[in-house]
Amino acid sequence: MVKTAAGSGSTDNGSTSASSSTSSSNGIGDMGSNSNTSQSIANVPNATQSYGNQLAKYVADPDGAKHFTFTAKQVMWEPVKGSPRVLAWTLDGTVPGPMIRVTAGDHVRITIINHFPAGTAIHWHGLLIPTEADGVPGVGQKPIMPGQTFTYDFTVHDQDVGTHMYHSHYDDLIQVPGGLYGAFVVDPRAGTPQAQQAIHADVEADEFISELGQYYVVTGKSFPDTQVIHVKHGQTVHLRIYGLGEMMHPMHMHGHFFNIVAEDGHMLPQPVQRDTVQVAPGETYDITFNAWAAPGSIYPFHCHILSYVMNPGQSTTEMGGLIVLIEYDK
Amino acid sequence: MVKTAAGSGSTDNGSTSASSSTSSSNGIGDMGSNSNTSQSIANVPNATQSYGNQLAKYVADPDGAKHFTFTAKQVMWEPVKGSPRVLAWTLDGTVPGPMIRVTAGDHVRITIINHFPAGTAIHWHGLLIPTEADGVPGVGQKPIMPGQTFTYDFTVHDQDVGTHMYHSHYDDLIQVPGGLYGAFVVDPRAGTPQAQQAIHADVEADEFISELGQYYVVTGKSFPDTQVIHVKHGQTVHLRIYGLGEMMHPMHMHGHFFNIVAEDGHMLPQPVQRDTVQVAPGETYDITFNAWAAPGSIYPFHCHILSYVMNPGQSTTEMGGLIVLIEYDK
Amino acid sequence: MVKTAAGSGSTDNGSTSASSSTSSSNGIGDMGSNSNTSQSIANVPNATQSYGNQLAKYVADPDGAKHFTFTAKQVMWEPVKGSPRVLAWTLDGTVPGPMIRVTAGDHVRITIINHFPAGTAIHWHGLLIPTEADGVPGVGQKPIMPGQTFTYDFTVHDQDVGTHMYHSHYDDLIQVPGGLYGAFVVDPRAGTPQAQQAIHADVEADEFISELGQYYVVTGKSFPDTQVIHVKHGQTVHLRIYGLGEMMHPMHMHGHFFNIVAEDGHMLPQPVQRDTVQVAPGETYDITFNAWAAPGSIYPFHCHILSYVMNPGQSTTEMGGLIVLIEYDK
Repeated sequence: MVKTAAGSGSTDNGSTSASSSTSSSNGIGDMGSNSNTSQSIANVPNATQSYGNQLAKYVADPDGAKHFTFTAKQVMWEPVKGSPRVLAWTLDGTVPGPMIRVTAGDHVRITIINHFPAGTAIHWHGLLIPTEADGVPGVGQKPIMPGQTFTYDFTVHDQDVGTHMYHSHYDDLIQVPGGLYGAFVVDPRAGTPQAQQAIHADVEADEFISELGQYYVVTGKSFPDTQVIHVKHGQTVHLRIYGLGEMMHPMHMHGHFFNIVAEDGHMLPQPVQRDTVQVAPGETYDITFNAWAAPGSIYPFHCHILSYVMNPGQSTTEMGGLIVLIEYDK
Repeated sequence: MVKTAAGSGSTDNGSTSASSSTSSSNGIGDMGSNSNTSQSIANVPNATQSYGNQLAKYVADPDGAKHFTFTAKQVMWEPVKGSPRVLAWTLDGTVPGPMIRVTAGDHVRITIINHFPAGTAIHWHGLLIPTEADGVPGVGQKPIMPGQTFTYDFTVHDQDVGTHMYHSHYDDLIQVPGGLYGAFVVDPRAGTPQAQQAIHADVEADEFISELGQYYVVTGKSFPDTQVIHVKHGQTVHLRIYGLGEMMHPMHMHGHFFNIVAEDGHMLPQPVQRDTVQVAPGETYDITFNAWAAPGSIYPFHCHILSYVMNPGQSTTEMGGLIVLIEYDK
Repeated sequence: MVKTAAGSGSTDNGSTSASSSTSSSNGIGDMGSNSNTSQSIANVPNATQSYGNQLAKYVADPDGAKHFTFTAKQVMWEPVKGSPRVLAWTLDGTVPGPMIRVTAGDHVRITIINHFPAGTAIHWHGLLIPTEADGVPGVGQKPIMPGQTFTYDFTVHDQDVGTHMYHSHYDDLIQVPGGLYGAFVVDPRAGTPQAQQAIHADVEADEFISELGQYYVVTGKSFPDTQVIHVKHGQTVHLRIYGLGEMMHPMHMHGHFFNIVAEDGHMLPQPVQRDTVQVAPGETYDITFNAWAAPGSIYPFHCHILSYVMNPGQSTTEMGGLIVLIEYDK
């Protein structure tokens, strides 16, 4: 039940259609066209928020669906304070976009209002989802063109439990490294096998590994502006790691080993202990570790390809890019 | 029992030898020399077939060996219709070459007739094989020079069951990304432990992930000319994935998760569920998935490094390269 | 208990401190500065040893600690005979540096005497270690500046058993690919669970996969100068593989499959059989294989990205770089 409407109006529960972007044509290669590369950034506003991955709100539709609405818009994003901003392609103005968090069994409706100067489409990566809601222009839909609104409509199943993501699937070489991605986390419903093997932790944090313009960013920021993972001695810590961008990053944790408990949202038969995990674009990892160290301890969690732990203009003795600190409360 | 013969004559069952390319000298670095880079392509014919990976035929030798014969030859290959052809180094004129499929216990004999303008040698990648049949000039043999014929002779064991491959191991930086590779699949023999854990599926397809000139190709073709994986609702689908070329490719499947059941031909202790698998050069993966979706559904299976899902000259809104479609019958 | 002393004097058991490099300031970004890139190499001496990874010696301190002392110094290193030497950043003059091998429960003290023209610091990668001994300038210590001495002091635990490594963590984009790394292997103590699952093998070898200047090197050397793995028919062989440098390397073994038994030093729940393993920077792998082949056999173990099995100036028909030979005694 995918619907689309020209303009920014909301859509109702089933019958709305639009002239320009219905999914009636599945012709491969029929993906429209637009040139994004020579765009002026003079009129793109600065982001009004410093960090992304905020929990998305929804309204309950009359049929019980959880209805999320996001606006695709460009902002000038600041990966690290005092350095040049970069043009970002976002949902709701942040990199990453808002975190979608739902429960298995939920009927989900997601409206995208496109304020980009270009077409877009969103892929719900890792979900068992019908073709027409899968977000691939040329296969299941047409691109959502500038000024148009499109609503994805699907149900999330027990098999979808875990850490997944969403990201642009149109002009994606521009839009995904440009910031159009976010978390799609599905919690288990009580009484299911998935609930029995749920990950329990005292602390949970999300780490999106990507590039952004000339920067290497974790959850939209470059070190030292990445968000600290605050822990207390003795806690169990759960990190959700999302691979975006164009590169594989071997993420290494200092002073600890961790358990890889799930890959692409699916629980491993048995956890694997590592201190480094290769995170490739399109993958997610759920890792847990025991905060064994003394109060006041600080450890980096960083990409071990050392050219990615620098910011533009830095010397090789400085630290930037793909580093997050784990700080123990004193 | 490796034999070699100058010229293109066939070899008999054990005693043939040649003056120029016997394996009597194992001197490291003694690998001959030839310059391939400045070759004229004016006289290289267009390929007469559009797709490779055809099941190879063999003759039964008097001693019971399955005897395959392939001709190494250059062709101009068309990764995608209407785009410039590229010089390909092939067995029997296709990229990939023919699929060798045998059964554990088989005695195998493989004759290579070299019609390349350069030396070559074939490595049987993933098999427990004697040094002299392993295909490495400078270690176990001399290169097969232009006009020469060479026969590999070995037995395939129960431990070799699974998805393996062959590829050039001489001037390999030119010849392997140039197309000289193919499947070497070993089926189990009845009554063995390998037979008990064999993969059963309704549909089987082979996906070779590689580069070819300026193209990114799956089984020799770039999207939209890659071969569709046709499935029916409810089927179990088995993909054999082969990593060639020079790059790691994280292959992502839309709308499904899959089970990784074997790596490099060896069954995992327990399957691992993923929606993305990092395929590096030299690796194979056997994955299976349940075709759960509705008739008429279409899903891409593609590399998630987005610069590899484009063809030369395409804009960023077009799709090409490392994409294969999974299409459900209506 | 991290101590530091200006000059090259040894340190005693707990109270020594220095004016310039105590860890009293943990200010992020406070990492000193120095420019390494324009240094003259005219006065750097040639290495006096051809191979690294020698077992490090220690003295027993009065408190029972095993006290290692290493000198950080530059040498001109020869990756392959007859080719230009490269500037290497070393401990004790070799690439890799000496192998540290201790037993769980050991109290370890490691003194670094810095004869570099630049600052340095050593990270003990993979160990559960206090922040102040973790080797990260800007977090747990200040860089050890030229002429200074610094002593790391920590205890190795049962959880640290396995194959780990050390490497520079200051100016690391220069120093780590430059050669400042080595093995840190922790053996189990009798009667522990770790001892029960220890890897038993007839032959053990260490393979460090990295780049060095324009070369691709295994344990500091490019083929054909890499160290042969000598085996006898029927032996069990244990390779410890260490990923350094800036790239992922899929290492393929000819003619055998191997068991991956541990990753980052941690035993897998069950071994995984492969013939190729993706080795990324920051990872270690313990693999074992059965030397099944005939006496006199030779097989390569090499990176399957073929541009990394060449040396500078070689043609594509020559073999160099990331290749090690497995040679069976006759």
